[in-house]
Amino acid sequence: MDELLERLAEIADLERVAMLMAWDQEVCMPLAGGEARGELRATVGRLAHERFTDEHVGEWLEAAAPRDELEADVVRVTRRDFDKARRVPGELVAELARAGVAARGVWLQARETNDFAAFAPYLERNIELRRRYSACFPEAEHPYDPLLDDYEPGMSTADVRDALGRLRDGLVPLVAAAPEVDDSLLRRGPFAEAGQRALLTTVLRAIGVDDDQWRLDEAAHPFEATIAPTDVRLTTRYDEADLDSLYSALHEFGHGLYEHQIDPALARTPLGGGASSGWHESQSRLWENMVGRSAGFWR
Amino acid sequence: MDELLERLAEIADLERVAMLMAWDQEVCMPLAGGEARGELRATVGRLAHERFTDEHVGEWLEAAAPRDELEADVVRVTRRDFDKARRVPGELVAELARAGVAARGVWLQARETNDFAAFAPYLERNIELRRRYSACFPEAEHPYDPLLDDYEPGMSTADVRDALGRLRDGLVPLVAAAPEVDDSLLRRGPFAEAGQRALLTTVLRAIGVDDDQWRLDEAAHPFEATIAPTDVRLTTRYDEADLDSLYSALHEFGHGLYEHQIDPALARTPLGGGASSGWHESQSRLWENMVGRSAGFWR
Repeated sequence: MDELLERLAEIADLERVAMLMAWDQEVCMPLAGGEARGELRATVGRLAHERFTDEHVGEWLEAAAPRDELEADVVRVTRRDFDKARRVPGELVAELARAGVAARGVWLQARETNDFAAFAPYLERNIELRRRYSACFPEAEHPYDPLLDDYEPGMSTADVRDALGRLRDGLVPLVAAAPEVDDSLLRRGPFAEAGQRALLTTVLRAIGVDDDQWRLDEAAHPFEATIAPTDVRLTTRYDEADLDSLYSALHEFGHGLYEHQIDPALARTPLGGGASSGWHESQSRLWENMVGRSAGFWR
Repeated sequence: MDELLERLAEIADLERVAMLMAWDQEVCMPLAGGEARGELRATVGRLAHERFTDEHVGEWLEAAAPRDELEADVVRVTRRDFDKARRVPGELVAELARAGVAARGVWLQARETNDFAAFAPYLERNIELRRRYSACFPEAEHPYDPLLDDYEPGMSTADVRDALGRLRDGLVPLVAAAPEVDDSLLRRGPFAEAGQRALLTTVLRAIGVDDDQWRLDEAAHPFEATIAPTDVRLTTRYDEADLDSLYSALHEFGHGLYEHQIDPALARTPLGGGASSGWHESQSRLWENMVGRSAGFWR
């Protein structure tokens, strides 16, 4: 059990390192650094995969005698992830990291000039690699199932279709019957960028963000990166025509708060991050919409 | 030879990753992220050490048949580094990384309040660990020799004493006889920080820095970090009383230019960084002093 936990701590660290590299790429990295960054991401990804799928891990899992509920959960989640990771070749993991970084740099430039043709081959390459990943699980009913399962463990494409279908059937009449809300003031700019920054700082401080444990930066596509529960990084983007920057920041704050509040006892285990994309989005959208669009919040 | 080169590329990548983490700690990381960052640095350091000192590397080195001068140099430098690294336990490498990160955070705060007492125990801990490192080489004539050798391969404490002694003997009369130079205008502030930033940007652009491959940030103690030859990061610090920010930036530019210009054929080998601290400082001080303090440069 101790050997297993030690190895899992190492894997958790390497995943945080990958997260820091991803954050840096979006927020800090000079554009020409992309090719080398692809290699760094590929190396760390391949190494983490190799260390995790190592046969020792299988033996430790076999012999593991959990001493409490936390350790039992660690073993359960690790078995699930281990069985899945063992099916995927390390070189594919490395190539996915490399291709992801390459596509991101091209996307950033293509986005500015609205040039889809420049991005298309990189997108194709990434889809092809994802298909190869999916093909490692030939028993899957639908090729998207193995991918979906990484984000929402245990959920299938058929489950999602069913859930979204039922939501649509319930929501469409609800939305049609809802009174129209006038939120045009949010798009009645120009709102100077400096003013937006000051607004976001004020709002984020009011809901618990401090400089000792959080950052707010700009990114072309806002995201949140948890480097540690005590090192949480939000991003947003500014457009003087509207106040979307505030809603992006609140959304990312929801992601960040979720991870910031994870029990420190789970640190450096596979339980130390969000449980799934669904849980994550429930937290981000709670802050963006339920809190951020409420009258009480604005008052 | 191919297996050896592949492993060395992995080690080179992990060293770049460590450099990125160090840069981030100085420039971006929220203060509370330090403890977790220590673990990340320790994990990457330990892993790089373990992968490098692996017995396979010894076997590959034994059997290596270099196909050209570059490969011969790689083998020579790797043998030197391998023999040294094999003597050091991985746990000490990890603890050095951890203790270095911890000390840095305390130093940053202690520096602001000029509180040496707060920093002293962290300094002591780092010196103790460095002594343990040195003790891995009991044959050394002087305990500093194994440390010095990491920065200036092949040089001993006795060599440095001799070189610096001869330099002192030659320089002291030279300085005494030199005409006094009035550079008080460099300290005749206040020089507004925004103006200093604009000056540095103008000067750095004029000598070849572009945003596609370089960054300039602020740090409490200026340094340079090469994440890749195409991703070079300078730092400086601003004081409105003087123009030292310019000389820091020129100094760090010298370090950065040295690594920026390394032959791409050496990338991801142990030859892909600066050859030694002495070579590095020769480049940084060339730009800071020989160029930066010349009349031609100012004109």
